Amino acid sequence: MKRLFEVDAWKIIETSLHKEDFRLAESMVSLGNGHMGMRGNFEESYSGDFHRGSYVAGVWFPDKTRVGWWKNGYPKYFGKVINSTNYIGIKVFIDGNEVDLYTADVKEYYRELDMQHGVLTRTYTVSQDGKDTSVKVVRFLSVAEKELAVMNYEVTPLNYSGEVTFVPYLDGDVRNEDSNYEEDFWYEVNRSVGEFEGSLTMRTVENPFGTPQFSVATTMKSIVDGSISSVTASEQEEYVENKIVVEAKEGTTVSLTKLVAVTTDRDYNEADLVTKGQEVVERSLTKGFATLLDEHKKGWLSRWEIADVEIEGEDEAQQGIRFNLFQLFSTYYGEDARLNIGPKGFTGEKYGGATYWDTEAYALPLYLSTADSEVSRNLLVYRHNQLDGAYHNANQQGLAGALYPMVTFNGVECHNEWEITFEEIHRNGAIAYAVYNYVNYTGDRDYLHEYGIDVLTGISRFWADRVHYNKKKDVYMMHGVTGPNEYENNVNNNWYTNRIAKWTLDYTLSVVEYVKAEGHENRVHGLHLTEEELSKWADISQKMYLPYDEELGVFVQHDTFLDKDLMTVDELGKEHRPLNQNWSWDRILRSCFIKQADVLQGLYFLNHEFSEEEKRRNFDFYEPMTVHESSLSPSIHAILAAELGKEDKAYEMYHRTARLDLDNYNNDTEDGLHITSMTGAWLVIVQGFAGMRTAEETLAFAPFMPTAWNRYSFNIVYRNHTLKVEVTKEEVTIQQTGPSLTLSLYNELHQIEENGTVTVPLRK
Amino acid sequence: MKRLFEVDAWKIIETSLHKEDFRLAESMVSLGNGHMGMRGNFEESYSGDFHRGSYVAGVWFPDKTRVGWWKNGYPKYFGKVINSTNYIGIKVFIDGNEVDLYTADVKEYYRELDMQHGVLTRTYTVSQDGKDTSVKVVRFLSVAEKELAVMNYEVTPLNYSGEVTFVPYLDGDVRNEDSNYEEDFWYEVNRSVGEFEGSLTMRTVENPFGTPQFSVATTMKSIVDGSISSVTASEQEEYVENKIVVEAKEGTTVSLTKLVAVTTDRDYNEADLVTKGQEVVERSLTKGFATLLDEHKKGWLSRWEIADVEIEGEDEAQQGIRFNLFQLFSTYYGEDARLNIGPKGFTGEKYGGATYWDTEAYALPLYLSTADSEVSRNLLVYRHNQLDGAYHNANQQGLAGALYPMVTFNGVECHNEWEITFEEIHRNGAIAYAVYNYVNYTGDRDYLHEYGIDVLTGISRFWADRVHYNKKKDVYMMHGVTGPNEYENNVNNNWYTNRIAKWTLDYTLSVVEYVKAEGHENRVHGLHLTEEELSKWADISQKMYLPYDEELGVFVQHDTFLDKDLMTVDELGKEHRPLNQNWSWDRILRSCFIKQADVLQGLYFLNHEFSEEEKRRNFDFYEPMTVHESSLSPSIHAILAAELGKEDKAYEMYHRTARLDLDNYNNDTEDGLHITSMTGAWLVIVQGFAGMRTAEETLAFAPFMPTAWNRYSFNIVYRNHTLKVEVTKEEVTIQQTGPSLTLSLYNELHQIEENGTVTVPLRK
Repeated sequence: MKRLFEVDAWKIIETSLHKEDFRLAESMVSLGNGHMGMRGNFEESYSGDFHRGSYVAGVWFPDKTRVGWWKNGYPKYFGKVINSTNYIGIKVFIDGNEVDLYTADVKEYYRELDMQHGVLTRTYTVSQDGKDTSVKVVRFLSVAEKELAVMNYEVTPLNYSGEVTFVPYLDGDVRNEDSNYEEDFWYEVNRSVGEFEGSLTMRTVENPFGTPQFSVATTMKSIVDGSISSVTASEQEEYVENKIVVEAKEGTTVSLTKLVAVTTDRDYNEADLVTKGQEVVERSLTKGFATLLDEHKKGWLSRWEIADVEIEGEDEAQQGIRFNLFQLFSTYYGEDARLNIGPKGFTGEKYGGATYWDTEAYALPLYLSTADSEVSRNLLVYRHNQLDGAYHNANQQGLAGALYPMVTFNGVECHNEWEITFEEIHRNGAIAYAVYNYVNYTGDRDYLHEYGIDVLTGISRFWADRVHYNKKKDVYMMHGVTGPNEYENNVNNNWYTNRIAKWTLDYTLSVVEYVKAEGHENRVHGLHLTEEELSKWADISQKMYLPYDEELGVFVQHDTFLDKDLMTVDELGKEHRPLNQNWSWDRILRSCFIKQADVLQGLYFLNHEFSEEEKRRNFDFYEPMTVHESSLSPSIHAILAAELGKEDKAYEMYHRTARLDLDNYNNDTEDGLHITSMTGAWLVIVQGFAGMRTAEETLAFAPFMPTAWNRYSFNIVYRNHTLKVEVTKEEVTIQQTGPSLTLSLYNELHQIEENGTVTVPLRK
Repeated sequence: MKRLFEVDAWKIIETSLHKEDFRLAESMVSLGNGHMGMRGNFEESYSGDFHRGSYVAGVWFPDKTRVGWWKNGYPKYFGKVINSTNYIGIKVFIDGNEVDLYTADVKEYYRELDMQHGVLTRTYTVSQDGKDTSVKVVRFLSVAEKELAVMNYEVTPLNYSGEVTFVPYLDGDVRNEDSNYEEDFWYEVNRSVGEFEGSLTMRTVENPFGTPQFSVATTMKSIVDGSISSVTASEQEEYVENKIVVEAKEGTTVSLTKLVAVTTDRDYNEADLVTKGQEVVERSLTKGFATLLDEHKKGWLSRWEIADVEIEGEDEAQQGIRFNLFQLFSTYYGEDARLNIGPKGFTGEKYGGATYWDTEAYALPLYLSTADSEVSRNLLVYRHNQLDGAYHNANQQGLAGALYPMVTFNGVECHNEWEITFEEIHRNGAIAYAVYNYVNYTGDRDYLHEYGIDVLTGISRFWADRVHYNKKKDVYMMHGVTGPNEYENNVNNNWYTNRIAKWTLDYTLSVVEYVKAEGHENRVHGLHLTEEELSKWADISQKMYLPYDEELGVFVQHDTFLDKDLMTVDELGKEHRPLNQNWSWDRILRSCFIKQADVLQGLYFLNHEFSEEEKRRNFDFYEPMTVHESSLSPSIHAILAAELGKEDKAYEMYHRTARLDLDNYNNDTEDGLHITSMTGAWLVIVQGFAGMRTAEETLAFAPFMPTAWNRYSFNIVYRNHTLKVEVTKEEVTIQQTGPSLTLSLYNELHQIEENGTVTVPLRK
């Protein structure tokens, strides 16, 4: 655990330059606006260790799969999030001496990320050759004008008058940190440069896999406030710059505002990219910095109006949830149905891919509750659009039906560890469950015959082919899988996988019935769903083997899990953790320690199908063995802990998920933030502390209050209602906008009048 | 199955140019002399597809491990067999027109590998511009002068007189086929060139892993028989050549003999390499081609005198065993204790590494019986020398003791699939078993206190740490292993692994007792072997869990093997095989099909510890599920089949192992020959058909005669005896040189007088 930034309800504040933890700090102050994003790199030069990272949504490269030993079925390429043109760069010289914050004498360093308004500000004083200079840099990626980035760089000589040189530039010669042999994914298409402006269009290099090349144009324009003594434009391959020399007087501020448009051929023809970028820049120039900033801030404020979760009594908790929501919305706010939510968003390039099952399992519930239902529908339609890819993936394994990918940009699997690609197939269950979750939450049943039935049929066909019948025991089994606990793999009969497969078959059968009953038989016929196939599914569901231990009364994680040397995390010295950094892979695989919720993930998803006693026994058995070294784990444990009245555990797990990156719990945030698990804190508060459930189309709450807090509140969109849920030490108040609504509070039904309120005492 | 070459008892004969299967043909006519070797590349140019391959024993490069996802414990590099300077090359021009056998009109093409004498000969007639030219090329790598390669190139104009140009050259600009990004592993250290001579010294590039760089010098000299009209020497970076123009008259043969010495800094200082090479070449020049060839042939004849296996009645079988022995001895004949036996020898570069458990499991028995015991001892001492590496490997996994590598050059594991590196640990058992096998066969018990006890202690300590105690069941288990059947992995309680581990512990305990009893307590103390540790080993051995199915009466391959969808290979269409080329890895892993002997490997090694009934039940259960897609598999099945009286199966499996490459059974011989399994045919004849056993220090035979054969015979060195075993349709004759010897024939003891003979009727 390492905390570089101060605790503040709305801000991330750094008061000293962390040269030793520079990458960690860079990750934390990342910015994004859905269209593009970047790590917290500096505008000016920095000769120390850092990780340059600037990314454009939907722009990727298929990197040829390289493994020591090829396995049939491996994907041919791994889709990489790629580092794109560095457009924030502004070199700064004081009387010809370049400012380099790594070597310079820096005082009063201050950096803040204002999450309420989405603005990153740095101020510091730098001393060179006896000259003290005060600097203030403001940066934002506009949420009002998605293609626009704005950098405002102010310089004030404190004890001298002299020459300040600004060199705003565009640099297309960038590499991925994880590229092989310094491979270059880009080449220049064209560049141009004028005195105060320039543009650079880069295209991704050709690939042999038939995936599209992408072009990205960056167009910059700079406005200077100060007395300009000279201006020079220069260029070289993949690089343009303006050199602007300004006379600066002691005590007087000079500044440069750099406006950059980032346009891509995902939106326009490549030939028009620069023109489109110039339009954005010119339009913005007319508005001026203050107006641009204001429009941007308004955008963020309106997001918070719907989504903010207020916590009184503990700023750490408050900062945590806001940081998570801020970074999540910076990555994805549902405007572009072609996009999804990558594991690092725009904050790093590790893992690659843009779409994981995290979207369905962890992100969808939040978007269901905090955004227009169109956003959630888009997330689901995205998968429907990639159904061909899923059929392709199953076929690669020699199997029928559809296998959604573990990692992808385009629907085709691109993860290349066999134990994940081929075995971690439970992901398919999460895609099916998302259909249920969406329809159940929104009531949009038309989705089932419009799209859902295709996806569910594909997945059910996969399960039906992936199981095998064990004659001797008269059961269907599923061998060779990796459950959500990736600290084991290639196991047999992972309870979670078998259970979610069984559930999928049941749900699909019910959806087929419903679609037929609603008069859409043509859809059922179109999918060639025969009675024979449907009854085969029913048979598999009925005879699905679900490992259970009578003595312990728990579902068994997989066939031989109980043969392990079982012990609890508490019995293990702290020096062993995180296991993935201290243990060999062999030791991890053989140990009983669980990376993330596995059996418990099933109890979370299918919550209403299990008794409290079942949940308690399994939680008590598995929780003590769980090390939570996946960012996806603590939230699920917290929600179940809350349901079971284990408030301390729920509260501990809330912190672990809400401050995972802020406190660098897993010692890996330097690579980027854990974007897809950023919903965790929200899930813990809403589904855990407030106990929200929506199963069987009934909205229910059962709130409790963590001891350290005094009050918390959040808003929920549920069908045509907007609810504000407020919990204090004494009572629970739910105020709704919309027609009359019946909901359950502590298992009792309450009817709230149109635009009415209900208040009940807090149950303790 | 694909057969390019004709069947002949002593030769591999090709009568047409196989442009479509050129690589396959190249593999088949590989040459080697232990010091160096090569694929059957042509001397002259060939513009079609081929695989240039020329390798020097013990010269390798540590290629940085590249995997999609790093696991703690992975080796940092993969040791590669590297392609070395092409020294056989002779470009040939007829009146300025280059001979290119891919594009040329070639008639009467004939190539033969004479295995009896180790000589490769090609003859053909090439027609260009109406000029017909007869060519004969003879090549050998001398077994009398290990650093010497000889190429004799004869050209005869058939219907014209003209200019023949020979361009002998040395080309150091070579690449591995599997190198990344055309990576170059070599750079030039120096070169020189004269009219009829030249030299080139190449050094492997630096590496960050601290493994040695290697230098290899090639020194050539050419002798021309014919009227020389001009000679030119030229050179460029990493390349030297002599251009020799010769006047050739119709019907008269002109020729060039190219002598090349290959010297390495494994034997001399780098600065002396060229001088040493010149000495070899000059010495050879003095002898002349005929003498060199004669010395070389004598070397091969003397090898055959000891090792030849004669089979009468079936040339295919005869050719098979000789091909195997020829290629095996070409790779390793035991002269250099620093070397071992790589999976492709000098015939390809796939797999890398030079040392696999194949050496102990498959090669050692042959060398024990056909070579001086010093050779076998060298193979064992090689592992003793690498004990530090084995301790390092175990430590990499966080485990005590010694883990011998799956693949290595220097003792440090370099294989980088976790399921192999971390899990296929049964290899350790084969190393331990080899100590037993050597001592039991040779009677060299001193080896135990001199070397054996160190290796056995290291391995036993590894097993003792790798098992875990299952409290509930009061047994020791071994989770997360890969058995010899690599078509499954990360399984629990692989019977073979648990059984060989138990055996190792027992054997080590008995060796410790013996070493103590013989008065070498200091060795036991030096290893810090305490009573506590020894009794822990005894406890583990006693309580080792060995999966067994009461109903079937078979040892269970691993915990959940019987839950699979069990079926036989016969029930599977031929179009599915080989599975590794037709099925996804996922399907292979989940299927019941067995790549190579697994449980049966244990019954082979520990043959005397099991009843015939046990062997029969397990053979009958596992054999029908075995696809033999490892070259190591058929021989083991054949030996057990022979023991169980299943003559048809034994005979079928003999052909499969003896002609694996000759008939390209597994459709992968184009990559190189399966060198380490080349002992298989010998094992089948000696241990299978002749039923040789040596357990409990008793030499025993129980021969039978395959129906298709009339007679077979072979020689065996056993302690201070040399035996000639001859089996005909009627009787078995064993003639021995040495003192009086008692042996078992069909389970009856016979005493053979000094240099005497015993004859018994063949049991049918």
